[in-house]
Amino acid sequence: MREIGVGLLGLGVVGSEVAHILLQRSERLSEQVGASVTLKKALVRDLAKRRTYPFPPELLTVNVDEIFNDPSIDIVIELVGGEQPALDYIRRAITGDKHVVTANKEVIAKNGYRLLSLATQHEVDLRYEASVCSGIPVLSPLQQDLAANEISAIRAIVNGTTNYILTKMAREDLPYEQALREAQELGYAEPDPTNDVEGIDAAYKLAILASLAFHTPVRPSEVSREGISNLDPKDFTYAHELGYAVKLLAIAKQRGETLEARVHPALTPLDTQLATVDGVYNAVQVEGDLVGTLVFYGRGAGGRPTSSTVVADVLTIARNIAMGGIIKPRMELNRRIPIAPMFEIVTRYYFRLSVADQPGVLAQIARVLGDHRISISSVIQKELDEAAQTAQIVILTHPSVEQSVQSAVAELAALPLVNRVGALIRVEH
Amino acid sequence: MREIGVGLLGLGVVGSEVAHILLQRSERLSEQVGASVTLKKALVRDLAKRRTYPFPPELLTVNVDEIFNDPSIDIVIELVGGEQPALDYIRRAITGDKHVVTANKEVIAKNGYRLLSLATQHEVDLRYEASVCSGIPVLSPLQQDLAANEISAIRAIVNGTTNYILTKMAREDLPYEQALREAQELGYAEPDPTNDVEGIDAAYKLAILASLAFHTPVRPSEVSREGISNLDPKDFTYAHELGYAVKLLAIAKQRGETLEARVHPALTPLDTQLATVDGVYNAVQVEGDLVGTLVFYGRGAGGRPTSSTVVADVLTIARNIAMGGIIKPRMELNRRIPIAPMFEIVTRYYFRLSVADQPGVLAQIARVLGDHRISISSVIQKELDEAAQTAQIVILTHPSVEQSVQSAVAELAALPLVNRVGALIRVEH
Repeated sequence: MREIGVGLLGLGVVGSEVAHILLQRSERLSEQVGASVTLKKALVRDLAKRRTYPFPPELLTVNVDEIFNDPSIDIVIELVGGEQPALDYIRRAITGDKHVVTANKEVIAKNGYRLLSLATQHEVDLRYEASVCSGIPVLSPLQQDLAANEISAIRAIVNGTTNYILTKMAREDLPYEQALREAQELGYAEPDPTNDVEGIDAAYKLAILASLAFHTPVRPSEVSREGISNLDPKDFTYAHELGYAVKLLAIAKQRGETLEARVHPALTPLDTQLATVDGVYNAVQVEGDLVGTLVFYGRGAGGRPTSSTVVADVLTIARNIAMGGIIKPRMELNRRIPIAPMFEIVTRYYFRLSVADQPGVLAQIARVLGDHRISISSVIQKELDEAAQTAQIVILTHPSVEQSVQSAVAELAALPLVNRVGALIRVEH
Repeated sequence: MREIGVGLLGLGVVGSEVAHILLQRSERLSEQVGASVTLKKALVRDLAKRRTYPFPPELLTVNVDEIFNDPSIDIVIELVGGEQPALDYIRRAITGDKHVVTANKEVIAKNGYRLLSLATQHEVDLRYEASVCSGIPVLSPLQQDLAANEISAIRAIVNGTTNYILTKMAREDLPYEQALREAQELGYAEPDPTNDVEGIDAAYKLAILASLAFHTPVRPSEVSREGISNLDPKDFTYAHELGYAVKLLAIAKQRGETLEARVHPALTPLDTQLATVDGVYNAVQVEGDLVGTLVFYGRGAGGRPTSSTVVADVLTIARNIAMGGIIKPRMELNRRIPIAPMFEIVTRYYFRLSVADQPGVLAQIARVLGDHRISISSVIQKELDEAAQTAQIVILTHPSVEQSVQSAVAELAALPLVNRVGALIRVEH
């Protein structure tokens, strides 16, 4: 049986699981592939560090050259994370004619297209299924199983940290700060949660998903972003009364000759699959012209789910090597669809105003909205605060242009009778 | 660009969509594959029949030899359905060294293993993704993306007809017969619905899923089956009060050294993804030791969703041909796990009794259950019918052995105070 050598860069949470599986299940995996898949070396920063599993000491190295210069290593797994030195490592592996598997969303979102071209030149494969929603197979279904479809939309919950926080806020009526703190205590959120709560992580994943689904390069910087830190538990209650859950959605949609690409909190109808995705779970909903609506649901983070996908990518490459064909990594970005500016999007909007409890307030609000050609779908007046003489008004609009809604909301906030506009959340059906 | 020829057997609902896509999208699909994919011939029964799309007359033939004897045809798509002559066609294609794509669950469930061995001998591929849940990619993720996992369980809604009927019964409190009639009027159920409502179709799909997930041959005849025709809308109401939906589930589970394989109505907790799958939609839930819970959701039937998958399988084969490797179709059934007899399974049970409204009834029931070592989790007494002097008693048990429950229920039915046992439904968490 031919031997296929594997080198691993990074032996953290995911790397340890990957190494453990490759060592423990080597016989069964090799049988599936029709070639012996052997983990040769793992790059670590500190040889003396205590590991989750007792790895043989000769497996570890602090010298990356031992991996790049070993001709018996056919596949390099990059799990160091972050942009550098991960990007350099991947480039070096490819130019050294080694296949690459990575879970690095930042590197792929920012450099995927160039790296894939480089891989094509060197006739090696570059696989990155785990870079989006780790354990959930979604990139391979998009590229393979849905290849005959024209995709019209992707709506996805791709960040487990924020979904955990939002689920907490909704179920336990907690303020954002407290839900975040609990997520941090459980290790679901980082000490500096910016990447997650501001939608940066989600934008990387959406850029990768949208590029593959629409065959056009989408840069993460082109994705409009709005985080979850301004949400109030009140909005979850009011949204629920109106028949919606509040989720941080990553959305990419073909609209005419342009593409919408945005990450923001959104009201999602309660009877949809996405609305029922709770806690750290992720889900990707895809609309294809032949297949209709598909949803892929599962764990979007964690050592074991990510290792499941990383090892699967290794096995796919190993199988192709064993099969003896010429490998052509695929990312057919043969279209150029411009990204629509956010102010042009048309959707329904939810917003909440804190107003003085005086006659004529609603008439003033309605007049401002009418001036901006925004028509109202529902109004709920809530929570008269006797002492402060204020009331909460919740408005759901019919489909309106983002720019008009933003102008109207600014005008509303300036009205003497309006204390503040508490939330502006887009509705996504 | 190399040309890859395709022959199509069957131009019905699915076949017409497949032919239409291959003709209409030929340029884009060929670009993706790196070879020109050309539909050469389509076998029909009647040349004069009106078609959904205006196909060129020279495409159609009533002579199957025109496909098998055409050396320019590399891939044969079998969409005639049923066991014969489909099985012969597939055999003939393989022995003629042509690759095969099929959506035929009956042929694959009954003969998949032998056909795959034959295909391996002839170094051709045999793909059948559309045979299970048509539009939803699930076989390829199971074999490829989850390859590193040990699968412990599959729970799936794989039959759209019955799920539509159950959804109707639940939402509109309709009796089974009326919900079935409405499904028939909409074309969701056949005039003879036996295959769907008795779980035969689901058993075919489960046999395929279980074989791939557990790497052991599972014959459809080994799957225990119970249909939906005995369900009463009352049970949907009571189940809902207890926190459950009623779904026809296809279940395969590793239990010790054996495998459970069964299709039957089941109480499914309302807060799970499967419970929210309504109407004609399907979903497959997979439990892997690394990945945890995954759910694949989408349309499990229909011309366009099925054609999406059939064409994807064609493209995968075409890509492999273009890549020049040796193709080895995979169905690694290298284990032999015996199927556990149904009477041995252990689960929770729901049942409903219609009883005389007299003192001591519940005590008698409890005694019978106790004698069979079945412990009760909840009891609800319902609907006192003053005129008939009867009451409904609903019981939910703790985990119990099927055989004990069946004996106890038979004994209960024989009690003078018990008019009848109205339903016995297994609970699936």
